[in-house]
Amino acid sequence: MLEHGGRLRHAALRYGIPAETWLDLSTGVSPFAWPVPAVPTAEWMRLPEDNDGLDEVACTYYGAPRVLPVAGSQAAIQALPLLREASRVGVIAPGYNEHAHAWRREGHQVEELPAQALLADAGRFDVVVLIHPNNPGGESFDRADLLACHEQLAARGGWLVVDEAFMDATPSESLCAASSMEGLVVLRSAGKFFGLAGARAGFVAASPALLAALRERLGPWAVGGPSRYVLRHALADQAWHVMARERLHACSGRLARLLETHGLVPTAGCAFFQWWCNERAEAVHVALARQGILTRCFSMPASLRFGLPGDDGAFARLDAALASLALETLR
Amino acid sequence: MLEHGGRLRHAALRYGIPAETWLDLSTGVSPFAWPVPAVPTAEWMRLPEDNDGLDEVACTYYGAPRVLPVAGSQAAIQALPLLREASRVGVIAPGYNEHAHAWRREGHQVEELPAQALLADAGRFDVVVLIHPNNPGGESFDRADLLACHEQLAARGGWLVVDEAFMDATPSESLCAASSMEGLVVLRSAGKFFGLAGARAGFVAASPALLAALRERLGPWAVGGPSRYVLRHALADQAWHVMARERLHACSGRLARLLETHGLVPTAGCAFFQWWCNERAEAVHVALARQGILTRCFSMPASLRFGLPGDDGAFARLDAALASLALETLR
Repeated sequence: MLEHGGRLRHAALRYGIPAETWLDLSTGVSPFAWPVPAVPTAEWMRLPEDNDGLDEVACTYYGAPRVLPVAGSQAAIQALPLLREASRVGVIAPGYNEHAHAWRREGHQVEELPAQALLADAGRFDVVVLIHPNNPGGESFDRADLLACHEQLAARGGWLVVDEAFMDATPSESLCAASSMEGLVVLRSAGKFFGLAGARAGFVAASPALLAALRERLGPWAVGGPSRYVLRHALADQAWHVMARERLHACSGRLARLLETHGLVPTAGCAFFQWWCNERAEAVHVALARQGILTRCFSMPASLRFGLPGDDGAFARLDAALASLALETLR
Repeated sequence: MLEHGGRLRHAALRYGIPAETWLDLSTGVSPFAWPVPAVPTAEWMRLPEDNDGLDEVACTYYGAPRVLPVAGSQAAIQALPLLREASRVGVIAPGYNEHAHAWRREGHQVEELPAQALLADAGRFDVVVLIHPNNPGGESFDRADLLACHEQLAARGGWLVVDEAFMDATPSESLCAASSMEGLVVLRSAGKFFGLAGARAGFVAASPALLAALRERLGPWAVGGPSRYVLRHALADQAWHVMARERLHACSGRLARLLETHGLVPTAGCAFFQWWCNERAEAVHVALARQGILTRCFSMPASLRFGLPGDDGAFARLDAALASLALETLR
């Protein structure tokens, strides 16, 4: 099992600090969660049904001609490599590590490369996997470049897979509208933008044939009833979407400025997190953890990802912790 | 995608009867659902964590040394065939059809046979898949016979897979306690007994090595936070378990007597459903559907499965519908 953010109980044990007192900035999940209403008992009791209106609401929200609900984009990441014969796969690096892991596990030949190398040299691959915006590197891409890459791959029966898990705050950059083209696969996560990571819900936008194959592979009842209920309402709440986008952009900007104030100038970022690439990353990670602030530490390259503090109190706590850190460094 | 029960919206469209007015007897899910409390917001917001106490509560409930939570036993059914090289697999027939489907899909050589043929001739197989009690056939098996079959398979690196989705009302028949032995895999469903089919939650009890391989295959966050929360409490509610078992046995007996009164003598059954094997199965299915009562119709062999009516009103409605059916037949 690969390492991920969000392991608060693990951190609580390791640092001897009770789980409920931590400030968890270790994931890219929005701290501004869509307000979940009471879920009708029937949603828990009954087997979920496909034709409950979720697909239609999701198509409108994502601007996609057709989608398949999945148990988090993770479920799609794991299943896609089962739908192709042995392929040459180029995966963005550094990036969310489950992509390369999943393709390798199914026996594909995987190369991990920076996005520009993949886009410049797509001819070498059957499948190119990008993350847009990238996690944790924050890279974003021109729509025209992506479509050109797709065209090159699709002409040879290849795929361009674009993981848009962090796209919801910048929806005009999404490729969902183009996703009915053969060979274009767009992954969306409902957990990040809606702050519903526990719901395990995401969507795949792709051609009808690919969605049918993926649906068959994932089997019946892939997403539970309560999650489908919550998603049907969250995806339709357009006023909330507008408000949440503004809030995420503002909060991420405020986080970038705070980090900068303390000498941690962000290398990159997006509306959901800031990324600081520095050889002191692990030392800062540990020093913050000792103060009950959990960040996500990467080793390749040495870097820290900071999720968004959810309120003034959380900002003040991070501010104070970073200040004490600077003092320690001066000693 | 195979056919399943619980497709109420589909039936509503087909028969032109509003979904909310149906009596749905098409699944084996208990109508006596564990009362789900309000789920804390944090369970929706945060990524689920493994070390939240669910494993421990589940081990106690199932009497198993070790378990892995999965997104319904369906998730395990789909993943197990990915953990073996091409094998000769004997699957109980008739039975829940996803087992044979999943093994075939991964390229294994599958034979579907009655349970007694599988138990008598286990030497021909690398993997034997039983359902205990069987669905829809209701067959149950001697513990000693199952353990002998397992021993024969395990000696050659084989597996005995026992799907105990409907075992919760007869827990002393479970093989969970023996599941640390290599080559014994027990699947449990939380949806049926707890009436929580929407939660998509189940458990696998098996050897540490097999559970580790399955966990790696299923990936992180296989079961959502709200489901893990509900399960932690439902599996620990021992007074409710006792009450629910009594209620299921009583209700299933009452259903058997009602069917018998109307000349539909059950071929077999268990605490969760009654099964009527008869060439008139489809005609009775359609006639009941026209009255807004959904049953599960099988063609091989021609048969109907009746789930439990949940209260006196539901029993009265089924009684009246079956009575009108008899009149029609007499005409």
